[in-house]
Amino acid sequence: MTKPSIPKGTRDFGPKIMAKRNFIFNHIRNTFQNFGFQQLETPSMENLNTLTGKYGDEGDQLLFKILNSGEYLKKNKKERINQDDIDQGEKHILPLIAEKGLRYDLTVPFARFVAMNRNELPFPFKRFQIQPVWRADRPQKGRYREFYQCDADVVGTESLICEAEIIMMINEVFSKLGITDFAIKINNRKILSAIAELVGAKDQESDLFVAIDKLDKIGVDKVLDELRSKSFSEEAITKINSILSLPTKGTDGISPVKEILADVEAGSKGISEIEQVLDHLESFGLENNHLDFDVTLARGLSYYTGAIFEVKVNNVKIGSVSGGGRYDNLTGVFGVSDVPGIGFSFGVDRIFDVMEELGLFPADLDKSTKVLIVNFDKESEKYGLGVLRKIREQGISAEIYPEPLKMKKQFSYANKKGFKYTLSIGSEEISTGVLTLKNMESGEQFHKTIDDLFEVMKD
Amino acid sequence: MTKPSIPKGTRDFGPKIMAKRNFIFNHIRNTFQNFGFQQLETPSMENLNTLTGKYGDEGDQLLFKILNSGEYLKKNKKERINQDDIDQGEKHILPLIAEKGLRYDLTVPFARFVAMNRNELPFPFKRFQIQPVWRADRPQKGRYREFYQCDADVVGTESLICEAEIIMMINEVFSKLGITDFAIKINNRKILSAIAELVGAKDQESDLFVAIDKLDKIGVDKVLDELRSKSFSEEAITKINSILSLPTKGTDGISPVKEILADVEAGSKGISEIEQVLDHLESFGLENNHLDFDVTLARGLSYYTGAIFEVKVNNVKIGSVSGGGRYDNLTGVFGVSDVPGIGFSFGVDRIFDVMEELGLFPADLDKSTKVLIVNFDKESEKYGLGVLRKIREQGISAEIYPEPLKMKKQFSYANKKGFKYTLSIGSEEISTGVLTLKNMESGEQFHKTIDDLFEVMKD
Repeated sequence: MTKPSIPKGTRDFGPKIMAKRNFIFNHIRNTFQNFGFQQLETPSMENLNTLTGKYGDEGDQLLFKILNSGEYLKKNKKERINQDDIDQGEKHILPLIAEKGLRYDLTVPFARFVAMNRNELPFPFKRFQIQPVWRADRPQKGRYREFYQCDADVVGTESLICEAEIIMMINEVFSKLGITDFAIKINNRKILSAIAELVGAKDQESDLFVAIDKLDKIGVDKVLDELRSKSFSEEAITKINSILSLPTKGTDGISPVKEILADVEAGSKGISEIEQVLDHLESFGLENNHLDFDVTLARGLSYYTGAIFEVKVNNVKIGSVSGGGRYDNLTGVFGVSDVPGIGFSFGVDRIFDVMEELGLFPADLDKSTKVLIVNFDKESEKYGLGVLRKIREQGISAEIYPEPLKMKKQFSYANKKGFKYTLSIGSEEISTGVLTLKNMESGEQFHKTIDDLFEVMKD
Repeated sequence: MTKPSIPKGTRDFGPKIMAKRNFIFNHIRNTFQNFGFQQLETPSMENLNTLTGKYGDEGDQLLFKILNSGEYLKKNKKERINQDDIDQGEKHILPLIAEKGLRYDLTVPFARFVAMNRNELPFPFKRFQIQPVWRADRPQKGRYREFYQCDADVVGTESLICEAEIIMMINEVFSKLGITDFAIKINNRKILSAIAELVGAKDQESDLFVAIDKLDKIGVDKVLDELRSKSFSEEAITKINSILSLPTKGTDGISPVKEILADVEAGSKGISEIEQVLDHLESFGLENNHLDFDVTLARGLSYYTGAIFEVKVNNVKIGSVSGGGRYDNLTGVFGVSDVPGIGFSFGVDRIFDVMEELGLFPADLDKSTKVLIVNFDKESEKYGLGVLRKIREQGISAEIYPEPLKMKKQFSYANKKGFKYTLSIGSEEISTGVLTLKNMESGEQFHKTIDDLFEVMKD
């Protein structure tokens, strides 16, 4: 018998971790719903032709593929896979033995869903989705092969109210989680395009975006070196350098960028969009919006066309914890055009790490069950079951130790599971109806009837 | 471009279906937690050596296997799979190209988790788990390739309080869901063993269980025929026939079975266990326990050793909607013995079908967002954003139509998404602060300040 284990890059979440994860999930879900987003769930498996080609070559490699069922070596009704097929390699064999894969993100399944159901959905369609995704990545600290994404998208409108609402939601979720020192970096792809145009590199946009995207990691000199290697002119590089050194805190960077890009139409459009988003936030009455306009924010994904966002928590060594942006054409790859939208994703695993590092989880989060009724003997147990039912009917979670074992064992269980209270019912308690409730942390004891103890338990 | 689709046997759950599913999930989850069960989540993928051999040959066939990543045709560091391997067939190739599979149920991953973490867990360990499972079954009505299970198990105790608590939980969940006409069938594997012993077929227990399990589907005559074909004596068959015709409603069947099995130790033990469970339910004070003692209930899974349960809803043509039972040795297959326990699983998909058939879902369940602010023009929008924030801060879900489009379009959206209220803010409303809230169902209108409207919205 082999020692049981789990696949590398995957995790079990026991009760204490689940309590913390649910604390995050619940705040995100409640915020999404409060803002009018409705829940969608899609299958874990998608047809490979839905997934393949949507995430670049590297992404295709990272898809988990599911082996066909039954006689998977049959490549059609007559023939089986043979040596000749094998000699042609993995890429040739794959479509013969696997039709399905595990979803890689929530965006492509969402696009597929919108394309399939566009005639029934209300537009604008505001959906949220909280489900795991899978990537056959090399596992390392903070990178897993199975992890949850928490996405909210609005499709079917170009209104910049959506951008403002995403900023509102980020502020609300982080505030509820107790994360106060964070920045929402914002930029606009139109501004980046305008910079490319300004420096005469309109046809090298993606080279520029890819290089700028590395600024945080490799520093400005290496970014400029990379651009040189991509044949950007020295004049272009000088201009880019001056832009990259503009302020990236608060909204101080807006005016200089506006001035620099005054004559480039896309630039003025991008700046105007940012300004409108700020106006909407003012109408909302949000005081501290945590926004940093950062003209160097690029984000890798090529499908963004307007606002782009990224959230970083200050004073922790963890990269961006959430991100998103506006796109013009979500469902184009599925043959349905004219579905613009904007999406945002909370990175739960990283938010979890931030909260652990900053000690932000409420202390009694793992006290998932509140009251343990101690089991002295058959009589105590019998009486206890009636009391137990009453406690539970008050919406207070409770249990009875299921056997009249030694007290030491029962209290050790109470400590290990983390009950807030123990309730003792001996023969005296049964005859008087005055029960003994003990707070396991403070040691404080309460002697009251069960009806009076409910208030203590609910506190 | 191929028309987008999803793999057969899988489903998208759009907002209206999700609202109904969550209604069920939330009641189950809250009940589990109220009873002291703590949440566990395990990875979707398990190593194939964890899964294989646990569900019988048929189960192994139904596992979804995940193709290894990268150069999956390499069978070891030097050699690749070749014609000779292929000629040996699917079973030979499988371990060479797939190490992982998708979980088939929640019980085996739970057993694997308990075996791996037995030194850290509090015992008795009460865990619940609500996650999807996958089976490569032939899809048909009511049978899917991806579906959720909702399991609760207690391990590490033989206390019959656990049996009583499962019955309490079933009653609570069904009552909250509004399902009133249902039966919890209960039997005990020890009783079935005793019957086998009584009729002199101790070594043919599983033949007997398998035949009896078909009683509902094929009727008593065919069950007896099947036993004849398995060489049960006519004397045995006469005895079994008399047992199979005992009452199966309420607890009337207990006395005759007790009498018949009086001299078989396992039988007395099984009956005594059932009686103790009834005693515990009485101590709990449960009035109508919905129990049917049914000596013909067998349940297929061979690992049950004590109580077995099955829930059926009356007057609907849907089989059992939930089930479970006691086992002696959950983790034995993972080399850890002496972990007895009891488990129960709510069949969410079938409960969903029952509730649809009986029309039990609350009518306004799909009204997930309560208030739509109508967008007349820029001024109305600006004012509306401030109002919107205040509504949301009250915990009321709300949104503003993101563009000042034609009223017809906005109200059509409100109807399609199913808002309960629309809020109109024109120039007069802005100057007076008296806003107009309309109940979309009744047509009733309220003219009040926003602070006074909160009460209406919360109703």
